[in-house]
Amino acid sequence: MSARPLALTLGDPAGVGPEIIVKAWRALSQDGPPFLVVGDAQALTSAPAAAGVPIRTVGRAEQALSLFRQALPVLDLPLTTDVVAGQPSGAHAPQIIRWIETAVGLALVGAVGGVVTAPIAKAPLYEAGFKFPGHTEFLAELTAPANQPGARGPIMMLTARDLRVALVTIHEPLARVPGLITIERVVNAGLVTAQALRRDFGIARPRLAVAGLNPHAGESGGLGREEIETIEPAVRALRDLGVDAQGPYPADSLFHQDARARYDAVLCQYHDQALIPVKMLDFWGGVNVTLGLPVVRTSPDHGTGFDIAGRGHARPDSLIAAIRLADSIAAHRLAA
Amino acid sequence: MSARPLALTLGDPAGVGPEIIVKAWRALSQDGPPFLVVGDAQALTSAPAAAGVPIRTVGRAEQALSLFRQALPVLDLPLTTDVVAGQPSGAHAPQIIRWIETAVGLALVGAVGGVVTAPIAKAPLYEAGFKFPGHTEFLAELTAPANQPGARGPIMMLTARDLRVALVTIHEPLARVPGLITIERVVNAGLVTAQALRRDFGIARPRLAVAGLNPHAGESGGLGREEIETIEPAVRALRDLGVDAQGPYPADSLFHQDARARYDAVLCQYHDQALIPVKMLDFWGGVNVTLGLPVVRTSPDHGTGFDIAGRGHARPDSLIAAIRLADSIAAHRLAA
Repeated sequence: MSARPLALTLGDPAGVGPEIIVKAWRALSQDGPPFLVVGDAQALTSAPAAAGVPIRTVGRAEQALSLFRQALPVLDLPLTTDVVAGQPSGAHAPQIIRWIETAVGLALVGAVGGVVTAPIAKAPLYEAGFKFPGHTEFLAELTAPANQPGARGPIMMLTARDLRVALVTIHEPLARVPGLITIERVVNAGLVTAQALRRDFGIARPRLAVAGLNPHAGESGGLGREEIETIEPAVRALRDLGVDAQGPYPADSLFHQDARARYDAVLCQYHDQALIPVKMLDFWGGVNVTLGLPVVRTSPDHGTGFDIAGRGHARPDSLIAAIRLADSIAAHRLAA
Repeated sequence: MSARPLALTLGDPAGVGPEIIVKAWRALSQDGPPFLVVGDAQALTSAPAAAGVPIRTVGRAEQALSLFRQALPVLDLPLTTDVVAGQPSGAHAPQIIRWIETAVGLALVGAVGGVVTAPIAKAPLYEAGFKFPGHTEFLAELTAPANQPGARGPIMMLTARDLRVALVTIHEPLARVPGLITIERVVNAGLVTAQALRRDFGIARPRLAVAGLNPHAGESGGLGREEIETIEPAVRALRDLGVDAQGPYPADSLFHQDARARYDAVLCQYHDQALIPVKMLDFWGGVNVTLGLPVVRTSPDHGTGFDIAGRGHARPDSLIAAIRLADSIAAHRLAA
């Protein structure tokens, strides 16, 4: 366990964020990694599962360490308008953004070991002038001035049980994907992933399997040439750079149990190639990790859940796994 | 069990076909569905697992019914040149093609209940003038003159444990897939699949889940418009035609255990979207079924395995599952 607490951003207060945070504290307060919430204390108090959970505001992050076993610590940056569960509001956007900025700032100055972000919705943030496709790109912008040795992300990784997948492209229409698969992008994603496996996951000699883009990984060019023209040269370049990269492999032969034993992570070319296996292995407990940034950042791999917010049956599995993983990564970075 | 035997084509004799057929007979001779092999008897006798397996030639398919419990029946159409395990040869191509034509002919005249095809390799067949991308298209051509009520395939389905997936596009470079997803193709694939679930699988009111093409099924158009412009209209058209079709759904949320309980088959838009889940659920035992043809046809979902041919450790799991499924489909068609 790291010597610093983690910072959890509240996310969209009209979503399941407050509820799953309260539930995560219940699950972790006894022996889990200490964290503080950066958000609106009232939203936590009003969450469906909050009855009996002591919630205490703190002025500095380090107070969370001693407080966490007795109460859920909150760095209170209150909202100015009421929250209605399930109804996102542009009026909350400036504070939602400020919570993220604050948590990242705490991580950059070393007051917290890492950031775990509860889900946000893009539409209400866009109304307030937010310009990023999501957390990941916003965090890259916020941390851009900070130094970091080695290859730079952000690269998105997802973890579920014994599987880790890193993505070359993420939220792109499928028709755009082939054009976005360049040697440079595949090499950078591979370098960032290999570096993170060593630095963040403590794997001394990481093995990287690279997925093809086309059926049967292109079948020697008969089913597409991206493997021959782009992915194979990228794999060779990664090997020249000292990364134990293998492939490209047909994506359908990479994810069964025997195959998973042969690598530490798969580099996937597009969203569903990575997300289908992750969600089959663990639909509720998958974790999203941002690789290659100066700060540690994880998040649950689900959305705001506006349709189930306020009812009390949101599952905290993914958030709890995200907290545990952020703590583990922070500890590995501290030890490095 | 159907009252007629099944016809198994030997496939490429230099691949694992002869070995897995002999192993399948061992597994099924006592109480499995009777079949006869259409191929070269000597290739079976020489297969790694053939020691102690009685192999008998037959002149007519129906003889297989009484013979099958004692011996492996073969309709012997011999090769003219020797077979070397692992080394495909264009010299075998005319007979490989003739075995398929013969088996399909037996099915068309009702002498066998269905056809199970062992794997072929395309390259040696192309040398001999074969013009089809694979078995499926060849079988469509061979059966084109025959009548069939309802919607017409071929549509490829794969089955693994409790999962059935049918494909709108199959062996296409990923870059070509978005352009091939048309309302007409999605509707036809949906109609053929629903009809097959009723007629071939005995499901009175089949539920069809339709996968989106893009991440998050396009996220209301933000990540691609194929769902809005093509797949949603196709799903509406299918419902107007009486098919219980739902979707399009994000592909990554369709394949975990809870989700699988909600449908009888998924209509997938492209190869890896379908094959990743199938091979995760059952890497060794998946079955390929051709829907919407006048003859029953299944096959193992693996290739010729030239790299492991002749060594004796090829697994017959997928072929055995393909034989059982062909028999089950034939019985359903007979009962209809």
